Amino acid sequence: MSINTQVKVNSKQQQKQLENRGCLLVKCPDKPGIVSVLSTFLHNHGSNIIESSQYSSDPENGIFFIRIEYHRENLLIEKENMENDFRDIAAAHDMEYDFSYRNDRKRSAIFVSKETHCLMELLWEWQNGDLDTDIVVVISNHEDARPIVESLGIPFHYIPANKDIRKQVEEEQIGLMDKYEVDLLILARYMQILTPDFVRHFESRIINIHHSFLPAFIGAGPYERAYERGVKLIGATSHYVTNNLDEGPIIEQDVERVDHRDDVINLKKIGRQIERRVLAKAVKWHLENRIIVEGNKTIVFH
Amino acid sequence: MSINTQVKVNSKQQQKQLENRGCLLVKCPDKPGIVSVLSTFLHNHGSNIIESSQYSSDPENGIFFIRIEYHRENLLIEKENMENDFRDIAAAHDMEYDFSYRNDRKRSAIFVSKETHCLMELLWEWQNGDLDTDIVVVISNHEDARPIVESLGIPFHYIPANKDIRKQVEEEQIGLMDKYEVDLLILARYMQILTPDFVRHFESRIINIHHSFLPAFIGAGPYERAYERGVKLIGATSHYVTNNLDEGPIIEQDVERVDHRDDVINLKKIGRQIERRVLAKAVKWHLENRIIVEGNKTIVFH
Amino acid sequence: MSINTQVKVNSKQQQKQLENRGCLLVKCPDKPGIVSVLSTFLHNHGSNIIESSQYSSDPENGIFFIRIEYHRENLLIEKENMENDFRDIAAAHDMEYDFSYRNDRKRSAIFVSKETHCLMELLWEWQNGDLDTDIVVVISNHEDARPIVESLGIPFHYIPANKDIRKQVEEEQIGLMDKYEVDLLILARYMQILTPDFVRHFESRIINIHHSFLPAFIGAGPYERAYERGVKLIGATSHYVTNNLDEGPIIEQDVERVDHRDDVINLKKIGRQIERRVLAKAVKWHLENRIIVEGNKTIVFH
Amino acid sequence: MSINTQVKVNSKQQQKQLENRGCLLVKCPDKPGIVSVLSTFLHNHGSNIIESSQYSSDPENGIFFIRIEYHRENLLIEKENMENDFRDIAAAHDMEYDFSYRNDRKRSAIFVSKETHCLMELLWEWQNGDLDTDIVVVISNHEDARPIVESLGIPFHYIPANKDIRKQVEEEQIGLMDKYEVDLLILARYMQILTPDFVRHFESRIINIHHSFLPAFIGAGPYERAYERGVKLIGATSHYVTNNLDEGPIIEQDVERVDHRDDVINLKKIGRQIERRVLAKAVKWHLENRIIVEGNKTIVFH
Repeated sequence: MSINTQVKVNSKQQQKQLENRGCLLVKCPDKPGIVSVLSTFLHNHGSNIIESSQYSSDPENGIFFIRIEYHRENLLIEKENMENDFRDIAAAHDMEYDFSYRNDRKRSAIFVSKETHCLMELLWEWQNGDLDTDIVVVISNHEDARPIVESLGIPFHYIPANKDIRKQVEEEQIGLMDKYEVDLLILARYMQILTPDFVRHFESRIINIHHSFLPAFIGAGPYERAYERGVKLIGATSHYVTNNLDEGPIIEQDVERVDHRDDVINLKKIGRQIERRVLAKAVKWHLENRIIVEGNKTIVFH
Repeated sequence: MSINTQVKVNSKQQQKQLENRGCLLVKCPDKPGIVSVLSTFLHNHGSNIIESSQYSSDPENGIFFIRIEYHRENLLIEKENMENDFRDIAAAHDMEYDFSYRNDRKRSAIFVSKETHCLMELLWEWQNGDLDTDIVVVISNHEDARPIVESLGIPFHYIPANKDIRKQVEEEQIGLMDKYEVDLLILARYMQILTPDFVRHFESRIINIHHSFLPAFIGAGPYERAYERGVKLIGATSHYVTNNLDEGPIIEQDVERVDHRDDVINLKKIGRQIERRVLAKAVKWHLENRIIVEGNKTIVFH
Repeated sequence: MSINTQVKVNSKQQQKQLENRGCLLVKCPDKPGIVSVLSTFLHNHGSNIIESSQYSSDPENGIFFIRIEYHRENLLIEKENMENDFRDIAAAHDMEYDFSYRNDRKRSAIFVSKETHCLMELLWEWQNGDLDTDIVVVISNHEDARPIVESLGIPFHYIPANKDIRKQVEEEQIGLMDKYEVDLLILARYMQILTPDFVRHFESRIINIHHSFLPAFIGAGPYERAYERGVKLIGATSHYVTNNLDEGPIIEQDVERVDHRDDVINLKKIGRQIERRVLAKAVKWHLENRIIVEGNKTIVFH
Repeated sequence: MSINTQVKVNSKQQQKQLENRGCLLVKCPDKPGIVSVLSTFLHNHGSNIIESSQYSSDPENGIFFIRIEYHRENLLIEKENMENDFRDIAAAHDMEYDFSYRNDRKRSAIFVSKETHCLMELLWEWQNGDLDTDIVVVISNHEDARPIVESLGIPFHYIPANKDIRKQVEEEQIGLMDKYEVDLLILARYMQILTPDFVRHFESRIINIHHSFLPAFIGAGPYERAYERGVKLIGATSHYVTNNLDEGPIIEQDVERVDHRDDVINLKKIGRQIERRVLAKAVKWHLENRIIVEGNKTIVFH
């Protein structure tokens, strides 16, 4: 990573290709012919399906989910037209759906506290051109991350926080989210609890990294409790934030082997490596519109 | 596993469901509208798509591959009709394709030598109802496996083999393959080399397990050579057999960690665990028609 | 695995080597000079240290644990002498200790219910000569496992069980444990709860396999609950049984990746593979005297 | 990671503890009593063994290796004395040995080319206090890494390199190695070949990261070749550099799963994650004196 350096810019040709890439997510009652309807619609609108993944919760009377990535010449010009034409189809089949475009990069905010390893990983992926987002602001209740964030030309806001001033802190945070027009809020080891109001404001748009293999060790001090229990693997979990602490829909999890010689300090060191990669994967999949939340679970189309 | 016991039989209802399951594999030049054509065809023939996976080797001028699993009432009666109707579509789009039916179980033969761990794993999966095949014959150049094989009611043929009598051994083997109408030949640590003629006879229908992480340690003595080289992981590779030794299309690979304390005997012990699961996975995917061979590679639709 | 076949017998030379192998486990207050005392004792008694692992819970005022494997000519003749001489050393340094001999194979009993995959794995390892134990009896509340167990020449006892007759069932089981002089009791998916009295009778000598990544999903139905929670990895845990359900000292854990497509049936299939290998490892380490239980944790010397 | 910031400094108390930590590596012909001799020596010199690992290449007539980490009050004052006293013991038992002290931090140089991910990982670990070394200089044939390196206060030297000027480049590099008194040279994706003279100069002190699972794909373009071969796992290997290209003693390896959809660009992205962690582990173990090179293999005492 070099500081004061722009994110790797794709070549003009690559950009041209990406601006003609679209993604359609659909959820509807399962019945025969859905794939035919969707693929025929896209074909009639000059689109070529590049990637398609589907899932049915139950062959009989289940819910059908599909993610289609397609290429269409002059997509930016035609997309409004396509979306309009899709309305009747959606209504006829009772579809919930979402059109998104590679050219419309999501705008991300990162919240962080003292530990910066998850922030660093995201910045590193972003600089490599591997996170398809604009990181528009970093907010922290500590000053530690300021130098690296500002060196990359990203606005950094220091907002001290504690439970007594939570309401006023969140107002300030929401103000910044609005100002920066944030689509996705990433909690990269932000160690403050968010109020139900705040969470509702950003429903299904907050991704957290929890430093345990959920549902083991919900809540505070997971490494300390993993040590006490004598587990032989420790893990980390990225999930969407809901108002049930650490119980939101899980996006990704991973583990590493530990043994009796690993004290809590070591568990935290090993854990940092897991947290970094688990959060980065979850964020990447969200940005690529690969995740559908269904109830308290996620469908992740790899 | 209990001996003298039939494979777990699915309930009548399950069997009914399975007999209406079909799978269509297609390979053709990529162009817009292929998914639409296929899904519309299936819908028009009363079929509901249950699972679909696709892959395009290149967005422009590439080759398109798709696997579709579908459900259709009375499939066994209608399938001939469907296949007939598909011919025009296939011709129009230059498709190679394959229709298969869950009800038509593939017939497998297993070749084994002295080491029976891979055979045992396959028999275990098969008895659990997790390998969707009829194991119609086991052939070995040793007698070790006879008791367990025969206790399961599977014919066992002992055919001693060495390089001087290869031709006549293979004639006998081919005779048995024909007699038992074998669709898939599994080399479960069969330690004899097959002649080009034999391999050609069963092209893309022989799965082997090689006891190394290919392309490292091609040929004989891979564990000995892994030990000499001081690698920190050992592996196993399942692949289709071609006439280039250990260079056929790879289906699955896996590894385990080892260290300086592991001598060759230990490497072999650890390796047996890897070989067992890697071969079982490859066989299962083949039986579920999840694999397309393209050039010297496989596309595996999980 | 071939039926009606003896466990692979080591060559006479190997047996000769093994009968001169001993293992010494020591636990004592940590202080300088312990390793010197122990290694000098062994050297003075003609023993050569082959493998040694140690662990100190805390560099200052901690507890010291060591496992030493050694070779001594004529060990079987000299061992009583050595053990006698060691008493003074142990007293002087406040040591708890255990001498064991490779030649004295532990006697194992296996309890199993309807699902036989863990039993099968143990029998397979045992037949390969990889489990250094005599399996002296298998007890089950179902008849499923009888044919395979008896075909290997191992006594099989069918004892139907349910919570109303628990006391009398356990009396019968304890009677058999005594009769067969059992050192280790392996619960290979035995689905009955054991009473506190029974557990106390075999303290630190019962190994269980729990079909979840503990402490997640303690108790019944872990795969069902893992499915409900939408976890992305499932696991299994082998542990010593105590009178706190699923809370005994953990010996080994492992996980496999799953995704939204895996229903409960699939989770169980995948889980069976994890359970098999996790239980087999734990049993092997116990038999090799590699495990020291300390509080509610294990120290496992690999 | 924050720029312009010093590496996390351990508290005075921690430093005090570390300055009394020593490590002794010994290699000698195996015979009874070696552990006794060494542990008694350390005890007599007031040292308490904290961690000890040993390995014997063969129980009979093998070579014995041991790593002992110990604590001794006033070690920095006593160490010369201890080393002197050890000479007779070493001579009597034909030992090769090495005393090292946690207080004497090794001095590392990093060579890097255009790809900075491995460099970044090392800097990140170092800033977290997890790499026990002084990074005294970074040398590159590109300017990319200069800003981040200099922002951390580490000297950066740009030395353009190509095969025509190799001799003069290496003279300059050796000059800098001497000037900065470098103990360890880390090739963090340095894409130039080193001459035999250069390698000899730093025997067993150069660690490289090769971007494949050696011995598969020795030499250039490993990801391209992995793609061509259709492997299902890709890997990375850290090893000591010798004058046989990519054939030096392996320190650590790891792999990640890939599939048919991963093109070469993707393999490289996935590979970067493996390279980062594999190199960081190898460097850490070297710095902690956990590695003994024996022939073309490593013994790594974890």
